[in-house]
Amino acid sequence: MNFEASEKSRELQERLGRFLEMHVLPVDAEVEAFHRDPANLWKKWPGLEALKAAAREAGLWNLFLPLDYGEFSPGLTNLEYAPLAELMGRTRWASEVFNCSPPDTGNMEVLARYGSPGQQEAWLAPLLEGKIRSAFLMTEPGVASSDATNMETSITADGGDYLVTGRKWWSSGAMDPDCKIAIVMGKTDFGAPRHQQHSMVLVPMDAPGLTIIRPLSVFGYLDSPEGHAEIVLESVRVPKANLILGEGRGFEIAQGRLGPGRIHHCMRLIGMAQRALELMSERAISRSPFGRTLDTYSSIRQEVARSACEIEQARLLVLSAADKIDRVGSKGARDLIAMIKIVVPSMACTVIDRAIQIMGGLGVSADTPLAHYYAAARSLRLADGPDEVHMSQLGKATIRKYTAAHD
Amino acid sequence: MNFEASEKSRELQERLGRFLEMHVLPVDAEVEAFHRDPANLWKKWPGLEALKAAAREAGLWNLFLPLDYGEFSPGLTNLEYAPLAELMGRTRWASEVFNCSPPDTGNMEVLARYGSPGQQEAWLAPLLEGKIRSAFLMTEPGVASSDATNMETSITADGGDYLVTGRKWWSSGAMDPDCKIAIVMGKTDFGAPRHQQHSMVLVPMDAPGLTIIRPLSVFGYLDSPEGHAEIVLESVRVPKANLILGEGRGFEIAQGRLGPGRIHHCMRLIGMAQRALELMSERAISRSPFGRTLDTYSSIRQEVARSACEIEQARLLVLSAADKIDRVGSKGARDLIAMIKIVVPSMACTVIDRAIQIMGGLGVSADTPLAHYYAAARSLRLADGPDEVHMSQLGKATIRKYTAAHD
Amino acid sequence: MNFEASEKSRELQERLGRFLEMHVLPVDAEVEAFHRDPANLWKKWPGLEALKAAAREAGLWNLFLPLDYGEFSPGLTNLEYAPLAELMGRTRWASEVFNCSPPDTGNMEVLARYGSPGQQEAWLAPLLEGKIRSAFLMTEPGVASSDATNMETSITADGGDYLVTGRKWWSSGAMDPDCKIAIVMGKTDFGAPRHQQHSMVLVPMDAPGLTIIRPLSVFGYLDSPEGHAEIVLESVRVPKANLILGEGRGFEIAQGRLGPGRIHHCMRLIGMAQRALELMSERAISRSPFGRTLDTYSSIRQEVARSACEIEQARLLVLSAADKIDRVGSKGARDLIAMIKIVVPSMACTVIDRAIQIMGGLGVSADTPLAHYYAAARSLRLADGPDEVHMSQLGKATIRKYTAAHD
Amino acid sequence: MNFEASEKSRELQERLGRFLEMHVLPVDAEVEAFHRDPANLWKKWPGLEALKAAAREAGLWNLFLPLDYGEFSPGLTNLEYAPLAELMGRTRWASEVFNCSPPDTGNMEVLARYGSPGQQEAWLAPLLEGKIRSAFLMTEPGVASSDATNMETSITADGGDYLVTGRKWWSSGAMDPDCKIAIVMGKTDFGAPRHQQHSMVLVPMDAPGLTIIRPLSVFGYLDSPEGHAEIVLESVRVPKANLILGEGRGFEIAQGRLGPGRIHHCMRLIGMAQRALELMSERAISRSPFGRTLDTYSSIRQEVARSACEIEQARLLVLSAADKIDRVGSKGARDLIAMIKIVVPSMACTVIDRAIQIMGGLGVSADTPLAHYYAAARSLRLADGPDEVHMSQLGKATIRKYTAAHD
Repeated sequence: MNFEASEKSRELQERLGRFLEMHVLPVDAEVEAFHRDPANLWKKWPGLEALKAAAREAGLWNLFLPLDYGEFSPGLTNLEYAPLAELMGRTRWASEVFNCSPPDTGNMEVLARYGSPGQQEAWLAPLLEGKIRSAFLMTEPGVASSDATNMETSITADGGDYLVTGRKWWSSGAMDPDCKIAIVMGKTDFGAPRHQQHSMVLVPMDAPGLTIIRPLSVFGYLDSPEGHAEIVLESVRVPKANLILGEGRGFEIAQGRLGPGRIHHCMRLIGMAQRALELMSERAISRSPFGRTLDTYSSIRQEVARSACEIEQARLLVLSAADKIDRVGSKGARDLIAMIKIVVPSMACTVIDRAIQIMGGLGVSADTPLAHYYAAARSLRLADGPDEVHMSQLGKATIRKYTAAHD
Repeated sequence: MNFEASEKSRELQERLGRFLEMHVLPVDAEVEAFHRDPANLWKKWPGLEALKAAAREAGLWNLFLPLDYGEFSPGLTNLEYAPLAELMGRTRWASEVFNCSPPDTGNMEVLARYGSPGQQEAWLAPLLEGKIRSAFLMTEPGVASSDATNMETSITADGGDYLVTGRKWWSSGAMDPDCKIAIVMGKTDFGAPRHQQHSMVLVPMDAPGLTIIRPLSVFGYLDSPEGHAEIVLESVRVPKANLILGEGRGFEIAQGRLGPGRIHHCMRLIGMAQRALELMSERAISRSPFGRTLDTYSSIRQEVARSACEIEQARLLVLSAADKIDRVGSKGARDLIAMIKIVVPSMACTVIDRAIQIMGGLGVSADTPLAHYYAAARSLRLADGPDEVHMSQLGKATIRKYTAAHD
Repeated sequence: MNFEASEKSRELQERLGRFLEMHVLPVDAEVEAFHRDPANLWKKWPGLEALKAAAREAGLWNLFLPLDYGEFSPGLTNLEYAPLAELMGRTRWASEVFNCSPPDTGNMEVLARYGSPGQQEAWLAPLLEGKIRSAFLMTEPGVASSDATNMETSITADGGDYLVTGRKWWSSGAMDPDCKIAIVMGKTDFGAPRHQQHSMVLVPMDAPGLTIIRPLSVFGYLDSPEGHAEIVLESVRVPKANLILGEGRGFEIAQGRLGPGRIHHCMRLIGMAQRALELMSERAISRSPFGRTLDTYSSIRQEVARSACEIEQARLLVLSAADKIDRVGSKGARDLIAMIKIVVPSMACTVIDRAIQIMGGLGVSADTPLAHYYAAARSLRLADGPDEVHMSQLGKATIRKYTAAHD
Repeated sequence: MNFEASEKSRELQERLGRFLEMHVLPVDAEVEAFHRDPANLWKKWPGLEALKAAAREAGLWNLFLPLDYGEFSPGLTNLEYAPLAELMGRTRWASEVFNCSPPDTGNMEVLARYGSPGQQEAWLAPLLEGKIRSAFLMTEPGVASSDATNMETSITADGGDYLVTGRKWWSSGAMDPDCKIAIVMGKTDFGAPRHQQHSMVLVPMDAPGLTIIRPLSVFGYLDSPEGHAEIVLESVRVPKANLILGEGRGFEIAQGRLGPGRIHHCMRLIGMAQRALELMSERAISRSPFGRTLDTYSSIRQEVARSACEIEQARLLVLSAADKIDRVGSKGARDLIAMIKIVVPSMACTVIDRAIQIMGGLGVSADTPLAHYYAAARSLRLADGPDEVHMSQLGKATIRKYTAAHD
């Protein structure tokens, strides 16, 4: 056991940190203002491609893909990548600069691990190049999606094709003008055993029958340019070659997709919380109601101290989960992966909310990133299954673990 | 002591409830969708005037103005009006239908109590008629406004006029196309004793030199049509007759304006929390993840039970504050008025947040009122002074009260 | 609706307050030290009887028995008695001085309402006189007592007698040397419908076969002289005349016993919390770590302010429950009675815990009443059914209430 | 960075675990009952010495003393010892079996690092042998001890001796019949600069003028046989050779004593919390109110899940602090050492409290270790400075860290 970052990891953090400080932070306000302007809805910020080229040039590209993806991987472990995700998370849009944005990251993992050569050539290659973006269509309106057996989208064989029919929502990234391909989860066999009903197919976003109904808002934010789409699929026809891995293997793919993505999400949230802590620290020394700066108030110091403690604990937990995934895989790290889902979004909400309060009215406005961060963190208490589902699973597993001797 | 609503109060609640159910709730979704559409920014919903006429016709007009405003008052006490404010608060926009919206309510109180006959004729009359709307310009960017001595806006005598210069923000309602008049707080004497520096003047919104810089957003919401404006005043010239009450009496007016407005805000928040409780109850019986409806889960029942307890306690606290204002005035009810500011917005955030969680992804979207409610409740932990300022004042007063014997 | 105490209520509070200040508080430390001494376990403090005589003389006797008990009642409503219970609760042992201690209060209510003339003469009369004390044997070890259908104690007819067999615990007051009679709940018919299995019988504490096994401790406190006993009943024979009301009516009696007793418990807890608030206020002005008194620290003011808010809200809730019991009876006030059980013990724990923290090491010792108060408040989150049972019931009822239209 | 325990550490944990399971847990109930009996106050449990001999025999002796204590150390790092402290903490009295109990551990560290050869021979040797026990007299009644400058105990030179005069309390372990020596902190120079006023001297417990006034209770527990004493020192005479390190160096010694002791305390608390989690898990499968076992209730699963998350996070934080002490010393690990003091006792209170609630009435009694654990954990939010002092220090340091660029 050893809590010190390796030489390699420290070096990468410094390099990425410098890139962010030189190229990303200076334009952060400009980018955010661009995306806030209703006139720019679903448009990309013009400077993005140049930044992506610079990141790639600097060797800061696709770093999320861990070692076990062989040729596709730039060679980091999940544990080594995690602190980099934290740094990218400090800015809402930085991940894309390094081709490390969800849901592309998870989709690239799926294609790299389970994709056929044809699928990899058609879709993985341009994704790894950062030339296109992608969506992941899983959650459905009207049913409790936390229980995947409720899913109603059908994938029906029709000659050499599949017909995909259903309604999806919270399809993040689907509004992006660069989004060209979706991985769609549905059922190929409604009568099969619980975990063999689902399959995943690749559906081009321009396939006839696929209609984007509307973008959904999160606390008033549309999150342009990626957005969160509600999408209707009406007998969308795709060739059978678009099936990933095999019929009935959707669950298996979904499980494998889960662990590292959870690490990324959580580390980005820690990056947001950390930035919130820094912003409240700055505020504390620059504001003086009633004659002395806020940092001399015991209540403010307590909020800062609690935040520092909560962030550090959450960070250690996520890093330990990343380490466990590296060592034994997502399945063996299941309890830790549930823990970080329970702990981190909630912690981020708490810390960001404290920072908002210390900012005063400024905190809920668009003049700091905090209100938007809050909305993002809050929605992650629901995305990917509400906290309660993960607590139920972890609680059950924990009770079983400590009472096994009784069985 | 007696916790049962009077006959009169019950009758009014029923009458208002019926009006809301017949005229307001059926168009709620339409109105909200109208205001969400960027094309309608800062426009009024076309059906509003007809509803206002109907409300006035039904005798549900200006009910907020308590007994002690004499001829202007329709005759309710604060305690009698409070449950009506709760009912109006269930819908974000209903208060205006009954001419009971902030900041007009507080501004009408100020003009009714302290306005000169000329001021009353020019501004109070059309406000009471619901023909115009108004703004209250107090908070300033860049200074800790919770401590009013920090205020930087100047009101300088210049012949028969005043020149008003300063920068204000969070001027709620100022974006409304019907907003014609602002009450502006500033300093007429920067060197006077602490509580005699401030004055209030009436400034028409179309006065030369008054510029609306931009609308501020609250968690991504612009809150059209009222909005929250940042406003610059550059040597805005108004006649001395526009001064309210007298030079140096701004603090005194602000104090008097405070109590009832706090009651209204808090009761509307309780209305929101109550509606959130009802929405989570409905969700609980209509959703069945993992084979049984949510209402059978012990954790869901606990969330509902806690919410019911917290709402009822907050309601009783606000009602007791209203009763105390009726009996001894705002000054004597000071501790209770601080208490409701500390308790209610925070309680509303908690309850609404629980409802959001139970809704799943739906909860953060615009398909229920919850996310917008949350933003409103959260901003009220800052508006009118952050919670912490009120806790500091109440804590100090409480310690003094229980240790007076030692002095 | 009206939040001001009546003349009569105010006068009584003053009178009781004076009595406490003159006769009870001056000997509080002496009494507590007496009961802490292991040598005095299960002995009464010698000065108690004189104080009881004085209280009776002063007309402060049996005040808990509300109006509807006719001749037995000194004539107060539950709402009028509630603030008196708060005052008595400020000292751990004061209730007995006024013959208002549990479980005697509930037992007297049962006997006054349901007792036969013979039962009233034999047991109610000396209880009303304060000559004996009593116990209530309900909870059983080894089963989930919150669900009364789990009860295992049997009451079996045997000629003209009943034989009572079972094991009870948490029988508060049973260790008291003056405790002469117990009301025992058990089952006369294990096969009857759920709510007709239980009966209550009067069992003298010296009945052969009744054995006190041991006193139970609460966080290290034995709570002498009353104590909490574990008791075994082995074929304890009592005449059939000792049955209260009738076979199978135990549930009905238990329900009726509940409401006012809950009010008393909760108001006493509010008295404890209020005293904790006053103690923390005193501490705040008398302690100066790091050069200034604690009351100038913003965090201390926040703790005091939050405590004041929480106490006041809880108080209003309990008072409103008392008022509702007075108006419509315990059954109609069921939701409010559940609410106060959920809210008040938990609130008291929170406030007392804050006071302990502000006291430093002193707070957990026996040099202030706080640690003992905490133990008492904490155990009331379990006594009478854990919070969770009441939240489940209230949650279910609330959901039903707001979704009735859907049925 | 690497979150897996080393081979060596795992082997030690298994060995200690087996010892506990074979020798300690089987007699746990007997030992606790022995110490609860008022007849055994301040007596040692007769079987203890045999267990100590067995532990020493098994090589499980003095393991707390880290590597840098050279010859005195059995050779573990703080990081390696930490999980062993967690295991010992599962039982209230186990640490003494392995000669790893406070305050002896801290006192041995002081003597090993700063003691003169004579002091080491006289006191360190028998302490390392487990032949005597010791006390640490620091905290004083009547002053805010969290600010050491308030200390009033004087250490006055008088010829070749010092005279020690003062009043101390919360001297844990001082009631133990084996306690033979105390390290007393006092001031040799009240006029010196803030951090050079204090010194530490060795005072035999049987020195004339040292009087144990009384044992203090913690939530009703006297914690026999160690206890927490209030002690008066009246011109207690000790030779100057009893001074540790030098006059004015008390602060320096206190600082050095702090880090590892904090690790031990916190890991023992984690052991308590972990045992509470296991107890609540067992309860959850063995109790069935309302027809199904508790482990199927979503609320119970949430409590278990939250507890598991909080324990794991706290454990990682303490381990990372231990690792940092090993790498850079206590001074460089200062922020982490503050963090664990803020986080762990509070976390332990929360988890233990949940377990109490799930146990029902049993939970507050002496039939499980939980109520006593709670008292221990709660008092550690005050011992060694209340949480608030550490939050203030950490908050200040954190703000400075993130705003350094502005200076």
